[in-house]
Amino acid sequence: MAKTLLRDPDVYRVRPGRPIHLNDVDPNDTSVFDGDKDEGREYAEWLSERLDETQDLFYADRRYALLIVLQGMDTSGKDGVIRRVFQSVDPLGVRVKCFVRPTPEELAHDFLWRVHPHAPARGEIAIFNRSHYEDVVTARVLGTVDEAACRERFEHINAFERALAAHGTVILKFLLHIDREEQGSRLQARLDAPHKHWKFDPADLEARLRWPAYMQAYGDALAATSTAWAPWYLVPANRKWYRDLVVGAVIVRAIEALDLRYPVPAFDPAAIVIP
Amino acid sequence: MAKTLLRDPDVYRVRPGRPIHLNDVDPNDTSVFDGDKDEGREYAEWLSERLDETQDLFYADRRYALLIVLQGMDTSGKDGVIRRVFQSVDPLGVRVKCFVRPTPEELAHDFLWRVHPHAPARGEIAIFNRSHYEDVVTARVLGTVDEAACRERFEHINAFERALAAHGTVILKFLLHIDREEQGSRLQARLDAPHKHWKFDPADLEARLRWPAYMQAYGDALAATSTAWAPWYLVPANRKWYRDLVVGAVIVRAIEALDLRYPVPAFDPAAIVIP
Repeated sequence: MAKTLLRDPDVYRVRPGRPIHLNDVDPNDTSVFDGDKDEGREYAEWLSERLDETQDLFYADRRYALLIVLQGMDTSGKDGVIRRVFQSVDPLGVRVKCFVRPTPEELAHDFLWRVHPHAPARGEIAIFNRSHYEDVVTARVLGTVDEAACRERFEHINAFERALAAHGTVILKFLLHIDREEQGSRLQARLDAPHKHWKFDPADLEARLRWPAYMQAYGDALAATSTAWAPWYLVPANRKWYRDLVVGAVIVRAIEALDLRYPVPAFDPAAIVIP
Repeated sequence: MAKTLLRDPDVYRVRPGRPIHLNDVDPNDTSVFDGDKDEGREYAEWLSERLDETQDLFYADRRYALLIVLQGMDTSGKDGVIRRVFQSVDPLGVRVKCFVRPTPEELAHDFLWRVHPHAPARGEIAIFNRSHYEDVVTARVLGTVDEAACRERFEHINAFERALAAHGTVILKFLLHIDREEQGSRLQARLDAPHKHWKFDPADLEARLRWPAYMQAYGDALAATSTAWAPWYLVPANRKWYRDLVVGAVIVRAIEALDLRYPVPAFDPAAIVIP
């Protein structure tokens, strides 16, 4: 990457195996970027364009897939990241899958059953808006799985993601970290704007009342499933511009670190005559 | 729509039931737009932004789905349309499905079996890059179905699309119409640019050798399946800027003709107190 205002966003990567407490991370942090909000937005746009440029080559190369996992409390900005980070990328190259409350049929299967079909093929980028991590966070907070069962699921997740990685899938997982105060004002903003009422569901307030349990469950999940082949990034997300910047930078760095190349054609282009 | 350089693109809509010959349509036509290429590009960008603005409301409303079908000979610009027309649209709201050569499992089913799962849900926009129309065009040219079987398939298609429309799906189908000379120079351009070799497949030249048969098959298919609920547009596509402009304008007009509204919430926003 050419621009230098941004230092290494790898500081937000969760180290494998170490305990992590979300409260230790300041959701207002902007320390990796030496610029203001306007410069940050501009930088994020530039990253989005770089992502678009690289995507053509990524698709042509067909040796790697890219899986982006987005998690976070309501209003933490999962939709916003998709819009901003991928705003310049060709719709042909990106698939977004939103995982909502599981259906009875899905619940009758193992928890990875509904996820696997949406893994990206080589050449593709898939974005999971929520994911199998709901099954070790929300499920745990609501008590549909206990802690011991969660520990087992962590192992299943690590094995599953390792199999995807072995196939050439680059996996990047982001927890968009806001604090309870920030969520409060974002929810109020939805109530105050009539054209945002449809985004509001009073049932979502229940998760808010269990904030500490969610933080605990996320902390455990990140510590147990941030692996070399599928790292978690704990992204300060109270400031939207900074959140977009960090996520974009991590993704662009990961793609640019690959040895991408256009495939050698199986024919001799010089010998072809268009009839 | 506010801008006035563009006249009604409805002239390219194929009237139901009337025979159509693709040779009657000039692929170089730009007659609906009173401007040059630069103005056309600018106008198309403006349309893409309008599409993005409307998409939020379209998603929130959740009463309609939008299905865009793109067909055309190799190099006719299906990928280009996806990139240009949808360049500003939130990736969350759009899904692209490319239909390639059917697998043995797909061929063991009826020809609509592989298509149906990709129909857009209410609130969604789906783009088919190729579609079930390959099964009445390519399949007919290659002789895997005869004309009588094609006639039957036209009926199946019309019934299928009518069922989608009854569910609230707005269906817009575009044949991107280039001539054989234009395809020749676009294929040559792929051979001349090393980073485009991966897009070239010598097997594609076979379709080029059967050009008249393809034009005949497309003409028959469009005449038989351009319905009130799922119209075809025959888009002059030798000029890329004009092709993008016409497709974008048809889509924006169709969405703006809907009575979209934000849904009334099932709760009283004023009575909610954020805990």
